[in-house]
Amino acid sequence: MAMATINNGVNVQALLDAREALKGSPEAAKFTWRASCKWQSGTYSKANVHGFFGLGQEQKHKTETSFEADHPEVFASEDRGVTPVEYVLVGLASCLTAGVAAVAQNRGIQLRSVESTLEGKMDIRGILGVDSDVRNGYDDIKVTFKIDADAPKKDIEALVAQSQKRSAVYDIITNPTNVTVAVV
Amino acid sequence: MAMATINNGVNVQALLDAREALKGSPEAAKFTWRASCKWQSGTYSKANVHGFFGLGQEQKHKTETSFEADHPEVFASEDRGVTPVEYVLVGLASCLTAGVAAVAQNRGIQLRSVESTLEGKMDIRGILGVDSDVRNGYDDIKVTFKIDADAPKKDIEALVAQSQKRSAVYDIITNPTNVTVAVV
Repeated sequence: MAMATINNGVNVQALLDAREALKGSPEAAKFTWRASCKWQSGTYSKANVHGFFGLGQEQKHKTETSFEADHPEVFASEDRGVTPVEYVLVGLASCLTAGVAAVAQNRGIQLRSVESTLEGKMDIRGILGVDSDVRNGYDDIKVTFKIDADAPKKDIEALVAQSQKRSAVYDIITNPTNVTVAVV
Repeated sequence: MAMATINNGVNVQALLDAREALKGSPEAAKFTWRASCKWQSGTYSKANVHGFFGLGQEQKHKTETSFEADHPEVFASEDRGVTPVEYVLVGLASCLTAGVAAVAQNRGIQLRSVESTLEGKMDIRGILGVDSDVRNGYDDIKVTFKIDADAPKKDIEALVAQSQKRSAVYDIITNPTNVTVAVV
């Protein structure tokens, strides 16, 4: 493989070096990601993301980012932002996409385009409390990738499979994750 | 309770009416939320949210919203957006916050402010493939609410508990959700 000519913009060597370095210092691998949120009115809120902890110290994104969330007009709300469940789809899409790029770089596959569409099916009788047998969250999420790359289809499918295997958000959604909620 | 004087900006009557209406027409309760995503370069991607399906027909948010995601510089990336796992925290924060406002309205509790901070702990040896016993996703998420409202602390705690009970994103994270990934 002509690895030198492949450039998906991922510094795979740095990631492989990090993997080696973290084998000897597991404490540095402990990250804490953070968000804060302020209620505005009704179902409308604003969340901010800026600092996080990792490699043994406080870190900051280059910029602080603010996100607006709300319920749509069909829920008798004012649609001042996307819904909370759509943020979960954004997280899943971006996690799998970053993974595809990283794995492709590692395997010497040049990507030309990676597009995906996500659909999450939800029966809102759950959140409205109509039927206690209906769950609140998604029944099912379907992700469809369309990838143009210098590789046969089976290798492209293998990229996506490996991305799933190493995806943080895929894991968070498909497996139970402990959440504790406190009021101070 | 002086219900008429309580205004958190949530149209609870419309939600109660919707609950009644959906008892007789479960098909209308079937929603599909969507996002699309395009890889940009490296671990950087842009996701869009606009249309969704519900109440038996195609719907659209008032505006299309675009979200940028990337990995930070400590992951040898360029930090052109927040990380995918931080989007999950944004979704959880906004879902629980909207729930607190809706439940408070229904219970006749005037909110003055609702703030939350979220922390998700993650051992990045999982996503880097250092140790197969380390999971990719969050080990644990902690949500801390600070709420100023016209109610005793136990009633405020009960608001938060009820919001958790009806939260779509809390359910998605704490329980397993099926995700299928296809390549076309």
